[in-house]
Amino acid sequence: MRNLKLVLAYDGTDFCGWQIQPDAPSIQGTLASAIGRITSEKVLPQGSGRTDAGVHALGQVASFQTDSVIPAANLVIALNDILPVSIRVLEADEVPEDFHARKSAKAKTYRYRIYRGAICPPFLAKHVWHYPYPLDFEAMRQAATVIEGEHDFTSFAAVDPEKEHYEGHEGTRRQANVRTIFSSRWRQESTEFTYEVRGNGFLHHMVRNLVGTFLLVGKGTLNTSDVSRILQAKDRSAAGATAPASGLYLVNVEY
Amino acid sequence: MRNLKLVLAYDGTDFCGWQIQPDAPSIQGTLASAIGRITSEKVLPQGSGRTDAGVHALGQVASFQTDSVIPAANLVIALNDILPVSIRVLEADEVPEDFHARKSAKAKTYRYRIYRGAICPPFLAKHVWHYPYPLDFEAMRQAATVIEGEHDFTSFAAVDPEKEHYEGHEGTRRQANVRTIFSSRWRQESTEFTYEVRGNGFLHHMVRNLVGTFLLVGKGTLNTSDVSRILQAKDRSAAGATAPASGLYLVNVEY
Repeated sequence: MRNLKLVLAYDGTDFCGWQIQPDAPSIQGTLASAIGRITSEKVLPQGSGRTDAGVHALGQVASFQTDSVIPAANLVIALNDILPVSIRVLEADEVPEDFHARKSAKAKTYRYRIYRGAICPPFLAKHVWHYPYPLDFEAMRQAATVIEGEHDFTSFAAVDPEKEHYEGHEGTRRQANVRTIFSSRWRQESTEFTYEVRGNGFLHHMVRNLVGTFLLVGKGTLNTSDVSRILQAKDRSAAGATAPASGLYLVNVEY
Repeated sequence: MRNLKLVLAYDGTDFCGWQIQPDAPSIQGTLASAIGRITSEKVLPQGSGRTDAGVHALGQVASFQTDSVIPAANLVIALNDILPVSIRVLEADEVPEDFHARKSAKAKTYRYRIYRGAICPPFLAKHVWHYPYPLDFEAMRQAATVIEGEHDFTSFAAVDPEKEHYEGHEGTRRQANVRTIFSSRWRQESTEFTYEVRGNGFLHHMVRNLVGTFLLVGKGTLNTSDVSRILQAKDRSAAGATAPASGLYLVNVEY
């Protein structure tokens, strides 16, 4: 049996998220149908992790096993012919038998886009968070660095019973809510504040909760030492609100 | 009674076009409802012209009369609060009594975007025409210049009984399908071919039919003198197919 790895980009706006659901259009379910049409097999591709409803991907990774002999390059073309234009397969590659999109992941990068102009262009509205009010960029930039390194991110994790499913790869699963963040950076462009964070795993809602907290720093409600205190509190109620899904992108997954 | 001019941007993807229709979401109808909620008047804003289903605008202009005393600047904020994020009011201005968005228009500019990369990013899919096959850019650029000046554009007009409604401003209406094109230019960017055309009025489907014809030039099926011949034929069946709505933008309207 062959093991295949796909790299995917998608506009999450019209989907209930990555995970297959019985009555709502999911990325995983739509991809499973398309693979099924090509291979005539019933396959459920495994993602590197879930993305929530409305969250986008520039480089999500999925893997699945197949008896089909279709060359990987042809699979890219065939899948893109069948899939809706809001989901694109960027790459397909044959990988070793033990490769698993989630369990083999070593690092992931997420990006969050805040649009700062007074009026959000209609073409961007579902691909950013529109926040036109005053924000202290330098304060946000400084606060973001506080989370770099290994920490227990309970304060930034969604309080939900399914939490385990969202956790990182095999190697970190035993460490509960402890994750290592390799870099956590804001950058400022003409009309946007963009946050990029790379780590060995992320808890459910973690990036959106971090962004919601950094926003409070930008507003002056919190400062950098408050963010340290919130991190140490290991208490979700200490942090800011969850930022909207529309601004979040899974940029890539490293193996 | 005050006369107000609005400048609008919209993502036409989820609309049946500019014109109000009984059972489908239109830009005009959505805008009329929003104005009605603010002014408590039943108002039907007049556009500079129709845009078809799926066609976008960066600077559509609409005008309407009102007894409301709301300052124009507040109207921008109030309308954007009510309207869906796919329609934005960019400007509102008080204009002389005799101003009419369609009848007073002197020139319009349209843009058409062709995405040339092998795989179209999902975030662009509804905002471009994805055409990844070989095209001779220089041939297209030359052919586009043929239509500059005053011509009868019957060969590029949709054959439909409602044609009259789509015609330009008052001054040209008597000249049937004759329009003056001030400039007609293709430009090439890293991943796109972009067409921009400015004229004193446009017939129904005219820009999309021009693009469909220039595409045949890019493919080598037609050449520049064929485009001259098609223009002179005054026969719709002589020209290329209508390019998809998703690539077309009404850029601005001049008065």
